[in-house]
Amino acid sequence: METTPTLKWKHAEIKVLMYFHALIPYKPVNPKTRLASVMTQEEREEFAEVMLGDVISAVRKTGCTATLLCTSKYTCREALVAIRKEGLNEAINWALPQFHCPALIIMSDLPMTTPGSLQRVLSTKADMAIVPGLGGGTNVIFVKHPETFHVEYYGFSYRRHLQIAEELGLTVEIIDSMRMSTDVDEPSDLVELMIHGHGNAREWLYEHGFALSMENGRVSVTRNGEKIA
Amino acid sequence: METTPTLKWKHAEIKVLMYFHALIPYKPVNPKTRLASVMTQEEREEFAEVMLGDVISAVRKTGCTATLLCTSKYTCREALVAIRKEGLNEAINWALPQFHCPALIIMSDLPMTTPGSLQRVLSTKADMAIVPGLGGGTNVIFVKHPETFHVEYYGFSYRRHLQIAEELGLTVEIIDSMRMSTDVDEPSDLVELMIHGHGNAREWLYEHGFALSMENGRVSVTRNGEKIA
Repeated sequence: METTPTLKWKHAEIKVLMYFHALIPYKPVNPKTRLASVMTQEEREEFAEVMLGDVISAVRKTGCTATLLCTSKYTCREALVAIRKEGLNEAINWALPQFHCPALIIMSDLPMTTPGSLQRVLSTKADMAIVPGLGGGTNVIFVKHPETFHVEYYGFSYRRHLQIAEELGLTVEIIDSMRMSTDVDEPSDLVELMIHGHGNAREWLYEHGFALSMENGRVSVTRNGEKIA
Repeated sequence: METTPTLKWKHAEIKVLMYFHALIPYKPVNPKTRLASVMTQEEREEFAEVMLGDVISAVRKTGCTATLLCTSKYTCREALVAIRKEGLNEAINWALPQFHCPALIIMSDLPMTTPGSLQRVLSTKADMAIVPGLGGGTNVIFVKHPETFHVEYYGFSYRRHLQIAEELGLTVEIIDSMRMSTDVDEPSDLVELMIHGHGNAREWLYEHGFALSMENGRVSVTRNGEKIA
């Protein structure tokens, strides 16, 4: 492991992170491209920001502070911001060795996350808790000794993270949560958010012409009256 | 409410159900038609039965006994069987008024259900616990006074069941569980089962040529080498 550099926060230089600090990777420009068929780029940027806001809000209500790992310039009142232009794994693996306390790594597209669901993660007795994403990804990791851990996102990252934990001899608790397993990537994911969301992301959808409707006995999503999922 | 008839079990006439008894609706003939593109009818019947077995196993491990509400003749060692040829709602609503104890209503296509996930449902302090299905359905209901409750499955039944509870003045706990929210209906649902399943349904898939593979950085399901989801 290389010498751990000081995190270069946007707002301040911080040498020691607080207990239960969250890392939230975030892409401010042209995010959520799989929603491009139903939202303009500007809308996707706004929607991604609103989802992020819901995640930060849930994180802060558990008592955690948060740092965004942003791919480009970004201002946020509720979290620290570190600009990291490299890939997702490189950015997180740059931050982890600098932790001297447990770390929560949570994706920014989990707007159904509630403080209660996060508490299930943070209260684990294991060395690590993980919430798989639907389809084999990893949505949330909580690791008590992040300085020895590293992440490998993309693809079947859930299996990979379990393997990494095993290689490190860590005990792992798998958290069974629909709210945190459902990341919002595709139009069809909007159904769950519109049904189960409590925060601003759900409101944003309704304010922008999205609605739930019934078709052939199934719940579908429409935008301005047209079915999109 | 009409006079409550005695349940006509396949194996025995039972007048009073046991504490924490589960109702599991089950269709033995031509089930899971949305899997028809990847399984023959015979395979779907076998697979549905194996999934049912996993659900019954989880239910029994929590201490519950179970009754299957079957649409046609069926034999089961691990559960009582009542043959009910009417629709799903009619069959359950025929059974509920006969309960004098809390009732668990659980679908047979939830093979990722574990005893631990069910315990979260059964230990609720509310009058009722519900696990929504992905897409607006209802996968599990636990209701402490089933004799006054009725179900309305199909479509946006999750919202309907919350409305029914509200009309009855019941307190409701919503259980946040990926394992129980993910019902196996379509080929794409097999991904989750193959990743997270522990029971025989997962084994059955592997034994019948289904496998996980990576394509464009995403986890997909193949059968005999061909991508199906």
